[in-house]
Amino acid sequence: MEGKMKVAVMNGIGKMGFTERDIPTPKDDEVLVKLDYVGICGSDLHYYESGAIGDYVVEPPFVLGHEPGGVVVEVGKDVKHLKVGDKVALEPGKTCGHCEFCKQGKYNLCPDVVFFATPPVDGVFQEYVAHEAALCFKLPENVSTLEGALIEPLAVGFHAAIQGDAHLGQKAVVMGAGCIGLVSMMALKARGVSEVYVVDIMEKRLEKALELGATGVINGAKEDVIAKAQELTGGAGMDLIIETAGTEITTRQAIHMAKKGSTIVLVGYSKSGEMTLPMSLVLDKELTFKTVFRYRHIYPIAIDAVASGKVNVKGIVTNIYDLDDVQRAMDESVHNKADIVKGVIKIHP
Amino acid sequence: MEGKMKVAVMNGIGKMGFTERDIPTPKDDEVLVKLDYVGICGSDLHYYESGAIGDYVVEPPFVLGHEPGGVVVEVGKDVKHLKVGDKVALEPGKTCGHCEFCKQGKYNLCPDVVFFATPPVDGVFQEYVAHEAALCFKLPENVSTLEGALIEPLAVGFHAAIQGDAHLGQKAVVMGAGCIGLVSMMALKARGVSEVYVVDIMEKRLEKALELGATGVINGAKEDVIAKAQELTGGAGMDLIIETAGTEITTRQAIHMAKKGSTIVLVGYSKSGEMTLPMSLVLDKELTFKTVFRYRHIYPIAIDAVASGKVNVKGIVTNIYDLDDVQRAMDESVHNKADIVKGVIKIHP
Amino acid sequence: MEGKMKVAVMNGIGKMGFTERDIPTPKDDEVLVKLDYVGICGSDLHYYESGAIGDYVVEPPFVLGHEPGGVVVEVGKDVKHLKVGDKVALEPGKTCGHCEFCKQGKYNLCPDVVFFATPPVDGVFQEYVAHEAALCFKLPENVSTLEGALIEPLAVGFHAAIQGDAHLGQKAVVMGAGCIGLVSMMALKARGVSEVYVVDIMEKRLEKALELGATGVINGAKEDVIAKAQELTGGAGMDLIIETAGTEITTRQAIHMAKKGSTIVLVGYSKSGEMTLPMSLVLDKELTFKTVFRYRHIYPIAIDAVASGKVNVKGIVTNIYDLDDVQRAMDESVHNKADIVKGVIKIHP
Amino acid sequence: MEGKMKVAVMNGIGKMGFTERDIPTPKDDEVLVKLDYVGICGSDLHYYESGAIGDYVVEPPFVLGHEPGGVVVEVGKDVKHLKVGDKVALEPGKTCGHCEFCKQGKYNLCPDVVFFATPPVDGVFQEYVAHEAALCFKLPENVSTLEGALIEPLAVGFHAAIQGDAHLGQKAVVMGAGCIGLVSMMALKARGVSEVYVVDIMEKRLEKALELGATGVINGAKEDVIAKAQELTGGAGMDLIIETAGTEITTRQAIHMAKKGSTIVLVGYSKSGEMTLPMSLVLDKELTFKTVFRYRHIYPIAIDAVASGKVNVKGIVTNIYDLDDVQRAMDESVHNKADIVKGVIKIHP
Repeated sequence: MEGKMKVAVMNGIGKMGFTERDIPTPKDDEVLVKLDYVGICGSDLHYYESGAIGDYVVEPPFVLGHEPGGVVVEVGKDVKHLKVGDKVALEPGKTCGHCEFCKQGKYNLCPDVVFFATPPVDGVFQEYVAHEAALCFKLPENVSTLEGALIEPLAVGFHAAIQGDAHLGQKAVVMGAGCIGLVSMMALKARGVSEVYVVDIMEKRLEKALELGATGVINGAKEDVIAKAQELTGGAGMDLIIETAGTEITTRQAIHMAKKGSTIVLVGYSKSGEMTLPMSLVLDKELTFKTVFRYRHIYPIAIDAVASGKVNVKGIVTNIYDLDDVQRAMDESVHNKADIVKGVIKIHP
Repeated sequence: MEGKMKVAVMNGIGKMGFTERDIPTPKDDEVLVKLDYVGICGSDLHYYESGAIGDYVVEPPFVLGHEPGGVVVEVGKDVKHLKVGDKVALEPGKTCGHCEFCKQGKYNLCPDVVFFATPPVDGVFQEYVAHEAALCFKLPENVSTLEGALIEPLAVGFHAAIQGDAHLGQKAVVMGAGCIGLVSMMALKARGVSEVYVVDIMEKRLEKALELGATGVINGAKEDVIAKAQELTGGAGMDLIIETAGTEITTRQAIHMAKKGSTIVLVGYSKSGEMTLPMSLVLDKELTFKTVFRYRHIYPIAIDAVASGKVNVKGIVTNIYDLDDVQRAMDESVHNKADIVKGVIKIHP
Repeated sequence: MEGKMKVAVMNGIGKMGFTERDIPTPKDDEVLVKLDYVGICGSDLHYYESGAIGDYVVEPPFVLGHEPGGVVVEVGKDVKHLKVGDKVALEPGKTCGHCEFCKQGKYNLCPDVVFFATPPVDGVFQEYVAHEAALCFKLPENVSTLEGALIEPLAVGFHAAIQGDAHLGQKAVVMGAGCIGLVSMMALKARGVSEVYVVDIMEKRLEKALELGATGVINGAKEDVIAKAQELTGGAGMDLIIETAGTEITTRQAIHMAKKGSTIVLVGYSKSGEMTLPMSLVLDKELTFKTVFRYRHIYPIAIDAVASGKVNVKGIVTNIYDLDDVQRAMDESVHNKADIVKGVIKIHP
Repeated sequence: MEGKMKVAVMNGIGKMGFTERDIPTPKDDEVLVKLDYVGICGSDLHYYESGAIGDYVVEPPFVLGHEPGGVVVEVGKDVKHLKVGDKVALEPGKTCGHCEFCKQGKYNLCPDVVFFATPPVDGVFQEYVAHEAALCFKLPENVSTLEGALIEPLAVGFHAAIQGDAHLGQKAVVMGAGCIGLVSMMALKARGVSEVYVVDIMEKRLEKALELGATGVINGAKEDVIAKAQELTGGAGMDLIIETAGTEITTRQAIHMAKKGSTIVLVGYSKSGEMTLPMSLVLDKELTFKTVFRYRHIYPIAIDAVASGKVNVKGIVTNIYDLDDVQRAMDESVHNKADIVKGVIKIHP
């Protein structure tokens, strides 16, 4: 497909702009996807606010966005499982396939991964993208491309639930009711966990959690979180905790709330990268810490969960912006965290 | 068996003494054991030095010691699997059998456990003890009661190895070459791990580690531990790390030394109970933390490992003291950690 | 509670009758339960028809029935978690607590288990029973004693689902739509499996399966079961198969329907005890066979699944009989398997 | 490397011959290996005797042999981890890397695998082979190319041990003392299993088993295998059984010998592909059947086990033949199973 496309670029900290690039040509094993929606992730906001995450430094102009949903418009000649017109969710990381981790099936740990919107690799706040067909997952009829864009964060939630071996019969709590907290809560429910509580300090997010199916919520600004968890479990403690808030306070609470012998899944990154934790208590309770780095083998599961109605993933979206409003989208998302749980860029209607 | 027995008691911080008590009478499901050897554990020393561990406070006179080996001298009428003259290793914790943890087989987490030398329950620095027969494990002919006394710390090492799923083909490192570090190293080797390195800062302990079968040692006072681990693994990182030193420094090193996707088993308690750790790195590497609280179902395995020659557990003993010298035994163990890896009280010859 | 109670007894093959016995007195750790409903299990019918299952031979008069639900009417003095008036489901097997299996948490393998209606231990087709309180699980308000009686077969279904590690994202098939097939199907759904197909040859049972939530059904008398499974999975094969029919035909079908590397859970017993199976195909596909003997640690999970509406367990009941009609109940259940999926004896209204 | 090489070919059932072919040229990601030794596997003998295994039919001329060890003589330009002169063991199966199984790390189940000596893919009874470098594993100095050739069968033994989660503290039995039985026994020992018994009916193989480290042997032609297993385990049954004989008799024995709740790993293929088994007993004991199809991720582990002296793999070799004697090698291996445990073709000295 010949022609030019509009691309939103980050021109510096806090500065979005636009440029025009050639519509890419898919290779033999790729498809060209017309993007409908791309979610705004916390990491996009972090690059936008600070210009870097750890060693990954933005060199402007840089394209943000790694949560895309769209429609196939061109198909490479070796591609068998997709055709023009198919709706797809795009898994954003292309892995080497040869390293120890790829061979063992833990491809999310591949050191040579090429991942959308992770410097120096551009993201997809743009009209089209050519992507490896094996990473483009066909959406069933009853799943929209907006939902397709949300498969990416949902995959993090499912990976957390799987790392924690979430299952029916447990009482679980999710620390944090942001996007990842909410998808984690829904992933736990989809895997059969009956009681899933959500902790946050922003009332609007807790309302969202209840609306999306949380068994109950705890406002950490108003209640004694640990005491409440003890009360909810008859003093036994929670069977499973998913920590998505990325703060020392919530991680410490998690350790106190956990039942002996149970598992805490750490998903949220702290600002400083460091946390001071009561490790002797962790040992006394013989807790396990599992952690989450992206996800692996989750897209088909997550799509299935949306298609079957187990997860109302589009329910997490509070704000949809046109591509032309990307500057406002980023600014509002940064400055109004109490109201904006999840923003999405609409690229094609 | 009628009569009196000598009992060593802790009369206050740093003060050992003796008393005489009745030789206990075993209940129907118990045996009376004449104790030959009782090991001195780090927790005994901690009570001796400071009078308490966390909420467990010594009320003198208090009997220390929970690592006993001896010979059955009397058998309760319901006991089937033991007879007078059998050498036994005694598992020191009697659990309730009814709680959720006991029923699930995780009896080490039983909240109602009665454990030797954990206040207010007396330990066994004494001539005899009556103990539940189910907790007295018969030693084969080629295992001595000295080795029987050392099954308790060895059980911690095996529980750590099992929590970490140690297996052939891994490269592992043990942080700390004290008693628990050494038994962990031997447990890893017994489970088939080919390469087990040991890190410490005391040369004598590292020599002991080599003598007992470590593949190599790293002196953290002289070498860059992390760089060395990278070198030993061709940059990949260690497949398994057992942390027994209980310091923030070694725990941080462990995180840096670990291969992506690998497991760190935490065994050592820190002094303050708190540690500041690079948790974002833990997430980036998708590490798992497993922890160890005592052990469960390990005595038969540990005895088998000693009997089959896989573990030279008596090799960890550097000092044997008569019961009459218990004051000196405690004092030397506290003050000369560089030379005394493991002290044992000899009660009956 | 003083007095006499009515007890239904099996007086010989095909012969039910009644007798009167003393209402039992609960021990200190027991409760006395007034029984409301007791389910009729396939094993009850087998004893009734043939007088024995393997080495277990009925010596009349013998009391059948091991699926009881009722109300606590008297409480032993050591019992803390139950009070008079509590509705309860009774787990029918009392285990020794001391053997290797009990200690490891696999109490369903305890060789010394005392299990209702397993000769020579009487069952509970009677008005009252005194039972270990730890085996009496309190039902929440919204769960009836009829549902309580059905927790026992449901526990088998959940144990099968857990043995097979059933989880969201799988396509599963259950062979057989009898009571155990139906509860297995519901257990799979409750654990999040989206697509659960059920195979049987009786149309009425397949209708029941659909009514209770099966994704689809396959009538083995009319369709090529293996071809259908291939079609449903795009040729890949099923991710998980629960075999409850206990026939060689369905077990062979299961092997052919299974995806490479997948698991088949065997629950159904065959008449002869033997099966001829294509074991080379099992190896070529690297399949795993897991098996189910009763269940362990399942009652709380199963009750939770019913209370939360995940499982409509009372939906499996097709026929309720008064205790006075026990002869007819047994006869109809034996002779009209096409119509009676699950019969229950109503003891107190 | 230009030139011609000698290739042994199967010209028909029972007929070996020779031909000359061009020495292959390695692709960019391949190496050219001068073969020193190639083991004779049971499947080679099966093709030689009957012309087919299941659907795999030999079209002569066909090259047998898939257990090669040799020395790198030429290196493709993209190959980094090997150089000329390196001794290597060659993993014989090249997988697609793209299918569900490859992505999940279960590459041994890849439907598009290209495997040496599996029709129509030629094997390596020849002087040279060009092979994907990623499948050529460098041998350390103290491991010979003869041992390199034996890594292939040893990998099957280790995969069996891993499928069965073999570990210290178990009592295990291996059914069959042929090549795969012996390597399985050694794999169990290397993973720390203390007691490994071996069952066979040929005295010479049992002697070999003892020589290579079996704890004990049972001659099924002379002893009651089940009774003996009960005696060896005090009536409890074996914790783990590896079945390599591929007969109904030994598989039935395995079921009777297994401890309740334990695992039987099926490795041996039966002649007919079918077995009649006491499946009700399998359920009563709640056994697990795991199975083995080739292996995955094992070469580094197996090489490490040989290098560290844990496994004396060359000890299984009873007969070494020159390539020129391949006809005699095959004939003797087929007709003298009592004396020849493992034959190897020596290609270059």
